Amino acid sequence: MRTSIATVSLSGSLTEKLTAASRAGFDGVEIFENDLLASPLTPEEIRERCADLGLTVDLYQPMRDIEAVPEEEFRRNLRRARHKFELMRRLGADTVLVCSSVHPLAIDDDALAAEQLSRLADLARESGIRVAYEALAWGRHVSTYDHAWHIVESAGHPALGTCLDSFHILSRGSDPKGIEDIPGEKIFFLQLADAPLLAMDVLQWSRHYRCFPGQGGFDVAGLVGHVLRAGYDGPLSLEVFNDVFRQAEAGPTAVDAHRSLLVLQEALGVAELPAPVVPTGVAFAELVTPDAEPVAEVLGALGFARTARHRSKPVDLWQAGEARILVNTGPAARRDGTGLAAIGLESPDPAGAARRAEALLAPVLPRRRASEDAPLDAVAAPDGTELFFCATDRPELPSWRADFEDTGQEPQAAGVRRIDHLALVQPWHQFDEATLFHRAVLGLAAQESVDVADPYGLLRSRAVTSADGGVRIALSVGAAPADDTVHAQHIALATDDVVAAARRLREAGGPLLPMPANYYDDLAARFDFADGELATYRELGILYDRDAYGEFRHCYTRTVGRVFFELVQRDGGYRGYGAQNAPVRLAAQHAARRLTDG
Amino acid sequence: MRTSIATVSLSGSLTEKLTAASRAGFDGVEIFENDLLASPLTPEEIRERCADLGLTVDLYQPMRDIEAVPEEEFRRNLRRARHKFELMRRLGADTVLVCSSVHPLAIDDDALAAEQLSRLADLARESGIRVAYEALAWGRHVSTYDHAWHIVESAGHPALGTCLDSFHILSRGSDPKGIEDIPGEKIFFLQLADAPLLAMDVLQWSRHYRCFPGQGGFDVAGLVGHVLRAGYDGPLSLEVFNDVFRQAEAGPTAVDAHRSLLVLQEALGVAELPAPVVPTGVAFAELVTPDAEPVAEVLGALGFARTARHRSKPVDLWQAGEARILVNTGPAARRDGTGLAAIGLESPDPAGAARRAEALLAPVLPRRRASEDAPLDAVAAPDGTELFFCATDRPELPSWRADFEDTGQEPQAAGVRRIDHLALVQPWHQFDEATLFHRAVLGLAAQESVDVADPYGLLRSRAVTSADGGVRIALSVGAAPADDTVHAQHIALATDDVVAAARRLREAGGPLLPMPANYYDDLAARFDFADGELATYRELGILYDRDAYGEFRHCYTRTVGRVFFELVQRDGGYRGYGAQNAPVRLAAQHAARRLTDG
Repeated sequence: MRTSIATVSLSGSLTEKLTAASRAGFDGVEIFENDLLASPLTPEEIRERCADLGLTVDLYQPMRDIEAVPEEEFRRNLRRARHKFELMRRLGADTVLVCSSVHPLAIDDDALAAEQLSRLADLARESGIRVAYEALAWGRHVSTYDHAWHIVESAGHPALGTCLDSFHILSRGSDPKGIEDIPGEKIFFLQLADAPLLAMDVLQWSRHYRCFPGQGGFDVAGLVGHVLRAGYDGPLSLEVFNDVFRQAEAGPTAVDAHRSLLVLQEALGVAELPAPVVPTGVAFAELVTPDAEPVAEVLGALGFARTARHRSKPVDLWQAGEARILVNTGPAARRDGTGLAAIGLESPDPAGAARRAEALLAPVLPRRRASEDAPLDAVAAPDGTELFFCATDRPELPSWRADFEDTGQEPQAAGVRRIDHLALVQPWHQFDEATLFHRAVLGLAAQESVDVADPYGLLRSRAVTSADGGVRIALSVGAAPADDTVHAQHIALATDDVVAAARRLREAGGPLLPMPANYYDDLAARFDFADGELATYRELGILYDRDAYGEFRHCYTRTVGRVFFELVQRDGGYRGYGAQNAPVRLAAQHAARRLTDG
Repeated sequence: MRTSIATVSLSGSLTEKLTAASRAGFDGVEIFENDLLASPLTPEEIRERCADLGLTVDLYQPMRDIEAVPEEEFRRNLRRARHKFELMRRLGADTVLVCSSVHPLAIDDDALAAEQLSRLADLARESGIRVAYEALAWGRHVSTYDHAWHIVESAGHPALGTCLDSFHILSRGSDPKGIEDIPGEKIFFLQLADAPLLAMDVLQWSRHYRCFPGQGGFDVAGLVGHVLRAGYDGPLSLEVFNDVFRQAEAGPTAVDAHRSLLVLQEALGVAELPAPVVPTGVAFAELVTPDAEPVAEVLGALGFARTARHRSKPVDLWQAGEARILVNTGPAARRDGTGLAAIGLESPDPAGAARRAEALLAPVLPRRRASEDAPLDAVAAPDGTELFFCATDRPELPSWRADFEDTGQEPQAAGVRRIDHLALVQPWHQFDEATLFHRAVLGLAAQESVDVADPYGLLRSRAVTSADGGVRIALSVGAAPADDTVHAQHIALATDDVVAAARRLREAGGPLLPMPANYYDDLAARFDFADGELATYRELGILYDRDAYGEFRHCYTRTVGRVFFELVQRDGGYRGYGAQNAPVRLAAQHAARRLTDG
């Protein structure tokens, strides 16, 4: 199906918006009136720009407060419409959106509304324009799609149809099934937006919290199904505005937007994408650093050994159990200091995983960095983290491991078994995008998001996981841009005995993050522990949590650059990530940093 | 009355919070449990720190999910409470907040709740502690203050009282009059918070949108009046949390908080402050700049003449009509580049105005910069702008004008009459604070706030004005930190004929900001103009607006550093600021900047 996006959904000048929409693969745009008014381009120039970019102008929007008003007022509205239809002629737009009136003078009279909309449609038809009438959820007298359709139907005018908007329909709790009773050719346009399920004033909800389909709580795909069954054959068009997108760069937002429509079409069976290939585990995490020493010290203390070295590049492989960490001291292209740059995901079908990612607009990375390297399927996640699809130790497939030469060193028996999860702080305007990416591109399941209080701001956090927990990624985001040496990425390492692991770490001179004593007094108030257990946790800075399934014990290293490590012990099927303890950990990190800085 | 603040209302470590509360003049604090847990200080050290800072620990909070549960569960809760009471003993806190239960196991049984709360109070009394039971607005079975009081009353325990919280009471729409039926000595604590009137889920509303009294839509003072008439004699304590305060610096937030309580007490007649002295006009605006040339060019083109020069400092006075602009090329203490640093406000009683500002915690600036200068009463606004209280041309009072020597130049007859308004972009977390400051300290009236769409983010804007419009300040704020060369301050100059003024500006080579042609096509669609009128506006970049009272015509100069000028013509009592046109102006500024930047 054709895809379209309203210019109001993207930030920047009209030119920037059009360029971003085109690059992301949209077929057309809705031109939002205010974007046109503020543009230095004439309507003809905008038309030309769209044509150059391969975009059709699918809708001009909106006209407001037109119908069901006293005759004198309506004449003024027709005068206004005449100007706008002339503008649309210059712009090359043949459909105009008319929103149901919110005007205090609007009269609750469907016959009058139908009559005046007919007269508007007469005028429109003279210019070859169609009028798409839409019920705003907060319209004064017309606020539901069936009411708007009833008026359109009774007007019976060939140039008058209806526009359906998933937000206005689903936010009202209307049953979208009735859409199938509308003849497809009378559905002149379809606007799509999702939104989180919030109990709030619908106008505020609409203006500030809309998101792309699949990122909120509405069944947008279900609604589109009804619209398609009604026979609609126009574009799927996104009209989404929220406070975050207004400040985010247009390019990534447009990609996120188009991805959401691809996923929606796949769900509806109207587009075929390469099937998802769910990763089964974490092959490695890759740190880039200008100075390998501090990282090597922490890894050594954690029981990692430098088991192999890249044949041609300054990259070391450190291993403990099945946990593998690459330390790359080569020219770090994108990042300064020490940070998490890449993740290797074990994949049943690396090439297939990359094909799906590419089809879903993920930037594909070069398969070979050097001619002698093993070919690797890799893409970039929205936050810039490189994702490698790996087939470690599967002789039938090329493996990244072949690029490495063993050093002969063996991991110590330190009890680290594997990477439990990776925690990735997202750029502050990319949280929903990251969730959709990991869900749709990688086939991971998104868990509920939780709020975490940092001493200097609120964080939102949400895990994406594979069914068996082989891959767990915790995404988090601050309420505004923040210092990433505090909100650092981290690598959590699974162990069967966190006490033993923490003790070994400390004995090896590893930088355990100390936890406040008051935290342990609170644990004592909340839980019964065996004799000495709490004293041990207190001594080692081990945190404790419990859920309906089991128990969780974990501790942290201090931060190196923009990354730190966690040792975790999950027992009895505990499903969480210790979010309950995150405020204490964050405060401890701030305190440690204050000590270091000052 | 004594004032207190909950540590959760401020950002940072517990130590930072306590310091900020003390410096802002609070008498005590509520210690929020999570702040204590995350602190490296022991309870004894916190107690000592508070004592050193002159703060009492008025409340420990909160204990949750205590009452109306099965016996076995309740015994666990008592065990938990025993730990907390011991902690409170170490901390020196004698009152604990118990919130009505939200636990799924909680039973709808007031008698059981009363009985268990009594047993909790027995235990508390042993440690010299009082239990203050509060109804959360979203409590499972107890969600109103009168219900909570009914349970406390029927328990009849001397160590059990109630805690009232203005948010929980007013957000439910409860009538606070019934508070007067509660014996004052049974009101153990009073927590105050305001909030904007939003139709949204009360838990989300509470967690993210609370603000200080006088900054929202609740009648907090009215509620406190009922509480005082009931005989309450404890502290007025603020418990406010929202997403902005969590990221803002604790120091300014604490000052803002304490100011809100001072204003509240004044409204209630329980504190006497120096009376407000409402300014009657704008004496001057002061620009600081490292390079006077570009500013002088614009001012000259606007019809300003350099009429006087400071006797001892590199400050020029430029004047046109009653509009005076100081251009200061001296060492600009706080700002880089060209910006608006100070505003002179005509005051009927400059010393009285400064006394009120000081009483309301505004930093007072030195009265004399140099021994030969006229004494000046001045304070700093929250955004750092210096406010001078002036008595221009009133021989009975010292005047800033006496420091200036006339150059002999006369203003051209360019038609600029006075400064119409000043537009000040606020640091992004200080919008509510700025509004309260201008309202309470200066006695200006705050208008409704409006949203303005900038191409790269949403702005919120709100004017504060004197009754006759002699002083008008438009405050605005972005949704996140932004580039202040785009969201610059501006000075709007009143003229009786904006067309003539704009034309003169252009002829004098002044940098008029060009407006897009599409804007004028839209004006033609919306309004009837006399022949040629619109063509003139189009030619000169004049924008047009109309409200119920009159008409507004305005145009802009390009930005110099972080400041630009507006020429405005108000006719027939127009009250606004052309907010309708702001998106077009902002887009034009972005476009002009792109041209300049290359």
